[in-house]
Amino acid sequence: MPLGDRGSDKSEARFCGVETDFNDDMPQVLSFNLSTGGFDFVVAPLMDPSYRPSLVQNNSLGSGALPFAASDLVLSPSQWSSHVVGKISSWIDLDSDDETLRIDSETTLKQEISWASHLSLQACLLPAPKGTSCSNYARCVNQILHGLSNMQLWLRIPLVKPDDDSVDAKPATLVDSWEIWNSFRLLCEHHGQLSVALDILSTMPSANSLGRWFGESVRAAIINTDSFLTNGRGYPCLSKRHQIFINRCFNHSIQIIISGNSGHPKASADSNDFHNYSVADLQRHPLRQYLEYVGHLYQKLDPLPDQERFELGYRDFLQSPLQPLMDNLEAQTYETFEKDAMKYLQYQRAISKALLDMIPDEEASVKTIVLMVVGAGRGPLVRASLQASEETGRKLKVYAVEKNPNAVVTLHALVRLEGWEDTVTIVSSDMRHWNAPEKADILVSELLGSFGDNELSPECLDGAQRFLKPDGISIPSSYTSFIQPVTASKLYNDVKAHKDVAHFETAYVVKIHNAARLAPCQSVFTFTHPKPVVDRESNQRYKKLHFMIPNDTGSAMVHGFAGYFDATLYKDVHLGIEPSTATPNMFSWFAIFFPLRTPICVKPGSKLEVDFWRCCGTTKVWYEWCVTSPSPSPIHNINGRSYWVGL
Amino acid sequence: MPLGDRGSDKSEARFCGVETDFNDDMPQVLSFNLSTGGFDFVVAPLMDPSYRPSLVQNNSLGSGALPFAASDLVLSPSQWSSHVVGKISSWIDLDSDDETLRIDSETTLKQEISWASHLSLQACLLPAPKGTSCSNYARCVNQILHGLSNMQLWLRIPLVKPDDDSVDAKPATLVDSWEIWNSFRLLCEHHGQLSVALDILSTMPSANSLGRWFGESVRAAIINTDSFLTNGRGYPCLSKRHQIFINRCFNHSIQIIISGNSGHPKASADSNDFHNYSVADLQRHPLRQYLEYVGHLYQKLDPLPDQERFELGYRDFLQSPLQPLMDNLEAQTYETFEKDAMKYLQYQRAISKALLDMIPDEEASVKTIVLMVVGAGRGPLVRASLQASEETGRKLKVYAVEKNPNAVVTLHALVRLEGWEDTVTIVSSDMRHWNAPEKADILVSELLGSFGDNELSPECLDGAQRFLKPDGISIPSSYTSFIQPVTASKLYNDVKAHKDVAHFETAYVVKIHNAARLAPCQSVFTFTHPKPVVDRESNQRYKKLHFMIPNDTGSAMVHGFAGYFDATLYKDVHLGIEPSTATPNMFSWFAIFFPLRTPICVKPGSKLEVDFWRCCGTTKVWYEWCVTSPSPSPIHNINGRSYWVGL
Repeated sequence: MPLGDRGSDKSEARFCGVETDFNDDMPQVLSFNLSTGGFDFVVAPLMDPSYRPSLVQNNSLGSGALPFAASDLVLSPSQWSSHVVGKISSWIDLDSDDETLRIDSETTLKQEISWASHLSLQACLLPAPKGTSCSNYARCVNQILHGLSNMQLWLRIPLVKPDDDSVDAKPATLVDSWEIWNSFRLLCEHHGQLSVALDILSTMPSANSLGRWFGESVRAAIINTDSFLTNGRGYPCLSKRHQIFINRCFNHSIQIIISGNSGHPKASADSNDFHNYSVADLQRHPLRQYLEYVGHLYQKLDPLPDQERFELGYRDFLQSPLQPLMDNLEAQTYETFEKDAMKYLQYQRAISKALLDMIPDEEASVKTIVLMVVGAGRGPLVRASLQASEETGRKLKVYAVEKNPNAVVTLHALVRLEGWEDTVTIVSSDMRHWNAPEKADILVSELLGSFGDNELSPECLDGAQRFLKPDGISIPSSYTSFIQPVTASKLYNDVKAHKDVAHFETAYVVKIHNAARLAPCQSVFTFTHPKPVVDRESNQRYKKLHFMIPNDTGSAMVHGFAGYFDATLYKDVHLGIEPSTATPNMFSWFAIFFPLRTPICVKPGSKLEVDFWRCCGTTKVWYEWCVTSPSPSPIHNINGRSYWVGL
Repeated sequence: MPLGDRGSDKSEARFCGVETDFNDDMPQVLSFNLSTGGFDFVVAPLMDPSYRPSLVQNNSLGSGALPFAASDLVLSPSQWSSHVVGKISSWIDLDSDDETLRIDSETTLKQEISWASHLSLQACLLPAPKGTSCSNYARCVNQILHGLSNMQLWLRIPLVKPDDDSVDAKPATLVDSWEIWNSFRLLCEHHGQLSVALDILSTMPSANSLGRWFGESVRAAIINTDSFLTNGRGYPCLSKRHQIFINRCFNHSIQIIISGNSGHPKASADSNDFHNYSVADLQRHPLRQYLEYVGHLYQKLDPLPDQERFELGYRDFLQSPLQPLMDNLEAQTYETFEKDAMKYLQYQRAISKALLDMIPDEEASVKTIVLMVVGAGRGPLVRASLQASEETGRKLKVYAVEKNPNAVVTLHALVRLEGWEDTVTIVSSDMRHWNAPEKADILVSELLGSFGDNELSPECLDGAQRFLKPDGISIPSSYTSFIQPVTASKLYNDVKAHKDVAHFETAYVVKIHNAARLAPCQSVFTFTHPKPVVDRESNQRYKKLHFMIPNDTGSAMVHGFAGYFDATLYKDVHLGIEPSTATPNMFSWFAIFFPLRTPICVKPGSKLEVDFWRCCGTTKVWYEWCVTSPSPSPIHNINGRSYWVGL
């Protein structure tokens, strides 16, 4: 039964499995581990571990039946597919120097996967590569993957990384096991049905190094009973570092699997051998206490905050950015964004500060400020402006300029409804072409995309600047974009699924969740408003960025860049999604993701050099980007061929 | 006028150019350099070098005409396109820290290329990147390339590599200029219209390092007059190392361009300034002696051997390998291969040796050897066998087994024509299915592809082995395939032009010419015949290879692997195309080329680890391959999805 209930979070992490030994009585394996033990599924060997194809063929072909654990008839199809993960024989070694073992391994692997596929199992657990070389294993698995329908293959990888900062790390000849996974999946070209099952050992690598795995396709974490500590009352428990890691697993839909024998006094008082079932034993399962401890961790998790719950369905789901200048937004879109109370509160605070700066108390009753909301939409910034006026006691004359005729209808209705007719003038026009009857003291706009300038705020405000007084102010007064390199195999695979270059040269709006952020954000492009008139500066930009990959991370894969913005509305009032300074409780913007056509592996302590361009043509604006170090990538999105924003 | 005549070699290398300074009298530039100087083309600046867009715009826009060297009307369209290469302003620096210079550079570059394109020039010479960082330059050139029709862009690259074995190399902060080229072209994704013009300096890097360039797209070698020595009589000449390099340029269609001022006593007795034309100067060109020296080198070249002349049209031309088992060869194909006298001579020698070993002189008149030619085609191996019989005085009974019914028609005609009816029995059958009436002493076959086993010789001979006596012999007795990593940008670009994965997962038969062989060959798969009966060995193979890139090569790009074979016919009689042991004067096989989907950059002194598999299914045989070090590539041709040989 599931570990617990986290409201709308229906992730796989609710389910906990148990690794079992070979047993040809599958119904009893299921009954003992599920009913008695309380586990949700078993990871069970499918084939007699003593089987070797070369021995069978040399002796006699016998009945022709392979020594599988059970006929498919002993369980129902739904039992096989819901409760059994196939465990591939752990003796196989496809990269052995012994050719007979190599060929036996390949034969067995193919037979077992074929059997698992016949049973419609959801997944099989592949044993970890035996050495550091795994190309023949990868070649065989890759061939199998290209013939599989839906089944997942979980490659078992021990969670080890030498020279990390854990107290008892051994500086032996161990390799960083991530490297093995990386070679394997590169050889298999990031195949979507190939994932990782991490073997959790008693020591844990550094936090940076662990972080990498949350950007990889990890489906399961196998905790051996040896990795548990014993608490004061003799019950199994996990170290603080293990607990933190397991909690992150829960949050990233990674299932826990308990493995090994009971080794804790209170775990199973009577029996250490749960394979030797007797009627009496059926009442208790030697690993039950471990399961209960994991369930306890799950239930202790903080409930998901409202906003996270709301955004669950958007996690790692790629969306094309809006084109609000070229296209008109729909009512539904306005409706969603207008609910972002925090955003409008920040605008109100910025406008209030500006009003107080512009008009001293003694002139409050005589002076009227001309404020123009450019891109007024259905009016939320008009409302924020009027509330700022009320709050500060400063008088306003408001122009609401909006190019979407559908939104203008709503604006008129709003003004009538609220009785703002004396204060607010509605202008149905593109701000770039409007002939204003007078000049503005304050220009208020919210034309920001996830990457700041990507919805063409700079170009629009250049057009609006004509009717801003020379000493007038723009809210926002500036905005800056930021990027950071990420491991994000889910996003990469979703882009790759389109099988064309264009999707790799497109930036996506996405709630990035299953990702590893490999270095702190750095700023990319800044735009300031109003532009000094003497400055003929264009809106083209070029920035070269240097990211340092921390030494203790180990090597990592960069699948692309997460992008954000931060805007200064007025003086110290800002608005943004850059993680270190993000405005809380705001949901108008997810991050933006710039993919790389070929993921780039970065070594620990190495420099990742990235170039970003903002290019401007007569009808469109676009970004180009590339990596130049450690090795040059192609320049992405040449001449905006794949992705652009229309002017 | 061309440097000379090399018979059928009509390569671009016949033409020699001269680099000139800015001059707005283009007809005189052409007349002086072509008619007086004897050069074939000029590399001339198109724009006044003092022009800077930012200065023009800040002052006045003037007449709006850019300061180009000449109106397009001063020369005929064919003069522009045949005799002028545009030299882009050398002051441009798109990666400068000075933003004004950067933007001026981009503007000028685009204006000049646009003008050159308007004039239909064949090529423009781009100045060398100023520093080691060239990403903004590459971005701009890449944008231009994607809008160009036919014009080539030649990026000027000085031929320098520090720490090489040349005597006067400076261990300064110089970088290997190949690295700059490599970054630039990776950023531009191997664009087919982007090539290199190498600046030849007075010192030459090591031979291994120079060798890399012959696998790159090099169109021109610019020799500055400073790089010439002075011979005993005061005339310009080149060092031995320069001569060797220039000769290789000639052989790789690389044009020579002379640059600089005359600095040799006998080069121009009167004038050192050839830009200051006077009527008297028109009679002599200060660089004429340099041109004549280059012409002298060209004319000194050995004439192309017959076979090379015959194969000129096949250089670097990708062909799909034959499928002689699945398809029937055409008469034309038999006709071509039967002309390969050397091949059949080797077979005759092998058969003679075997006959002498099998029958001592005293039994020669009483014993008859049963020899079966399996895959007899139109009979050349039957003829070789009978000639061996005659040569050795050993008696033969010959079976000629052939599966192609069309070839069998010719075989019957041949036997009648030659009066071989008593000796030769023709069998129209696939050797894998033939029920032989008796067993053979000798099995003769020639089922070899460029990669040895790639035309399924192993599978065919497995089938034929049924009718070979236990102590019988097979000619060939074994064959081995070989590969070596190569730089081959021409081949890579031709594969890439198909814009799909399948062509990158196909092996091609090709006369590899413009390529750099980066390491000596290593053996891959060996097949021996007859197979020992107890040996149930399959024809599947797996080989991991380690290539060491020599230290003095510098970094290099691996575009794929050149493949060859060597066959042991009988004892010391062999036949093969592996370069170090190739049978001379044989033309039946070109090399085979296994491409890599993504070229891999290897560092000097580093290890390149490569895996090759020969996989066998029920209906086909195929290869899979991958690189595992320095970084793993995807496994190519999974399950033979792109390229296979039908059984």
